[in-house]
This record gives sequence, C-alpha cells and structure tokens, in this order.
Amino acid sequence: MDFERPIVTVDIVLLTLRDSHLHAGLTRRDKAPALGAWTLPGGWVHTDQDQDADEAAARILRDKAGLVSPYLEQLRTFSGMHRDSRGWSLSVSYYAVVPEPVGEPAGERFRWAPVDGLRSLPFDHAQILRTAVERVRSKTLYSSLPVHLMPAEFTLGALQRTYEQVLGATLDKRGFRRRIEELDVIEEIPGAFTSGGSHRPAQLYRKKAHAPALKTATSNLPVG
Amino acid sequence: MDFERPIVTVDIVLLTLRDSHLHAGLTRRDKAPALGAWTLPGGWVHTDQDQDADEAAARILRDKAGLVSPYLEQLRTFSGMHRDSRGWSLSVSYYAVVPEPVGEPAGERFRWAPVDGLRSLPFDHAQILRTAVERVRSKTLYSSLPVHLMPAEFTLGALQRTYEQVLGATLDKRGFRRRIEELDVIEEIPGAFTSGGSHRPAQLYRKKAHAPALKTATSNLPVG
Repeated sequence: MDFERPIVTVDIVLLTLRDSHLHAGLTRRDKAPALGAWTLPGGWVHTDQDQDADEAAARILRDKAGLVSPYLEQLRTFSGMHRDSRGWSLSVSYYAVVPEPVGEPAGERFRWAPVDGLRSLPFDHAQILRTAVERVRSKTLYSSLPVHLMPAEFTLGALQRTYEQVLGATLDKRGFRRRIEELDVIEEIPGAFTSGGSHRPAQLYRKKAHAPALKTATSNLPVG
Repeated sequence: MDFERPIVTVDIVLLTLRDSHLHAGLTRRDKAPALGAWTLPGGWVHTDQDQDADEAAARILRDKAGLVSPYLEQLRTFSGMHRDSRGWSLSVSYYAVVPEPVGEPAGERFRWAPVDGLRSLPFDHAQILRTAVERVRSKTLYSSLPVHLMPAEFTLGALQRTYEQVLGATLDKRGFRRRIEELDVIEEIPGAFTSGGSHRPAQLYRKKAHAPALKTATSNLPVG
C-alpha cells in the first residue's frame, strides 16, 4: 500500500522579552491559505538544501526574522488530517529565545506581539505558541535558559528580573543567586560595573564563552 | 517554489523490564531497505485513516507488537537528507513503557532485546533508541513514569526495584517512599498482601484508576 505523503512544514516560536513581557515574533503570510494573516514564522523543508529539520528551522529564522539564535530547539511535532486545509499535514515545531532585538525589524512582514494577548492564530499556531511558552516557563524553573534573553552585558539583578518576568512570579534573591552559581554559565566582566543613577555601581556579567546552550539543576526554583 | 515532500514515518521505542534490565521491542522488516533486519516498530502515516501522528503510533503499536500502551508519548522528530536511502525523510518518534508482557509475543516478526546491547540498528534507530532510554531514565528521577512498568498488583519494594533497575542505581528507601507518597498515583489494595516465602506479608498496591498518565515532582531523586 502506498499513501499520499503528508505536507511537512517547519514552524518556529521566536520569543523575547519586551516591556517586561514575553513577546512572539510573527510573520505575515504571503500566500493562501490564511493569506495576509499573521502566523508563526514557518515554511517548507527545502529537500534540495536543508540537511535536516534543524537546518530548515535556522534558515527560516534567518530569512523571515533576520535572526540567528544560539538557542533553537525542537518543541514537538504537531500533525493531523484537519489542521491545514490543503491536506494531512505535519509541523515540526521549534522554539528560540533571543535578547530583545536592537533596531526594530518590524514592518510589513514581521512584528512582535505579547504572547498573553495571542488567543487566536491561523492553523493550530495558537496551540504551538502555548506549548512553547509552557516549555520555556518550565525550563526557567530548573535551567539556565533565560540567559539567552539577556544582552551581552547584564547585572545579576537584571537576570533575576528576567527570570521573574518569564515566570510571572517573584524569586528569593539568595536562592536565585545560589542557583545561578550552581548553573555556572555566566562570569563577571573584570572591572566592568554599571554607572550613573542613584544606585551603587553593580558588577556586570556575561555568558561564559564555552558554556553549553543549556544547563540544568536537579530541582525547581521555588516561586513566591 | 515547490519541493518534493519528505518521506514521513512514525517509529516507536517500546520499552519494558525483563530479567531486571530494560528491553526494547523490535520488529523484522518485510521490505527494502533493510529487508529482514530488526528495527524499531514503525510505519507510514495512513493519511486516509490516522487523525494525527499519535493515532498512527497507537495503530502501529497494536499492529506490530499486539499492544495497547496507556503511556505512549512523542519523543522527538528525527530527520535528514541521508537517514533513509529513499530520500529526505522524517521520523516522528514515540516511546511507550509497558509491564513485562505475559505470554511471549516474540516470534518471526517481533522480539525483545536488551537495550544496552543494541549498538547498531538500521537507519538512525540506534540514536532514536538511545534518546528514548535517556528520556525514560531522566523522567524516572522526577516522575511517576516507572509505574507503567508494573503489573496490576505490586509491592512498594518491587516498585523501588523497578526504579532502581531503570536507573541502574540504588535509592534510599525512605526518600523513595516519600516521593511515591508525594506523587500520589498508587493506592493500597484493601486486604491484599503477598503470601508465602520466608518474608513478612507485604501490602499490595495498584495504580489509582483516575491518576494522570504522568505526575512530576519538583526535584530529582538522589541516586546512590
């Protein structure tokens, strides 16, 4: 027996923090179905050039959002007979987290939207988005994931606020600092401190150059 | 632009404990490529009947291993230009864990093999198997997953040995019992105890009828 091959796409939930809230990058569809609608960046696998789905995801992120993300991971595969009007289809979905982009890439074809306001999107993209946000929140509890949301230089206070904004909850400062030390993915920048304002200068940190993309702890951070 | 659609298969890592070791269910391929070789149970998506990939996985498990598994979860999607000689292909991979089957389904088309001895399998099935075993071991540290490996009635001691056999490590008895209580997925069978032998009779337990397929804790079990 031979069966029609499913439609295969690769779709990406691209997340960043803006104005203290998680935002997702959306692109405007330039063909049917859902012509003109804002959706997750996605596309077909280019079987003549993509070595695998990971490469397809990186290519789509580059082409549609103008971004290279050091953290781009498979989320899960969504599939079904009815999720796409063109036939039985399958989306190998990815998620990426990036620092807030400097210089607005937004325009006719790309924009950022707060994830909490995105209740409906074409296809099952709202479900894919929800799954990615849950994954990012869950990994924030036990891993170094939010470090990918930080700019090149940051304070420990800013990193804690990032964790808190992703979780929508407050964290105990001492427990948070112990966790960051245990994860061992950031380092002090020698002699670099914040300046100005009414606060004491604070030590600036950066990602360690050779730290793995993700490090995990054996327990969840307690959230307040 | 239009691209050739990738080949899509669904493959399943079916795991059980036999003789204290994790075993995977293998089926013998009845067509090329790899005709006659033992591989993970798998097949095409039947786009005329499978509602989604989850349904395809359940159908394949039923047809190839004669099994229905209450725990059948997506593992990840493996893909690439070169993993299948027929062209760009993609395997939506699943894993299932089941109690040791009573009555050997093994034969010409199906057998169990110890996972630690399976270094090479056709396609990238050895990598898929390795990924599933890692996932099961990691979930064993923080969830109720191994309960799916148990028969209908079991003692707490047998459940602890199951956790230990999956992990290949020993666990502290008191910590283990606290964890099982916290997960709250099993219950005493009223008036049911082990009998015979030189040991004291031990309370028998069963899965709670309405417990979710998986419950998780906020920290890993410490392994000794």
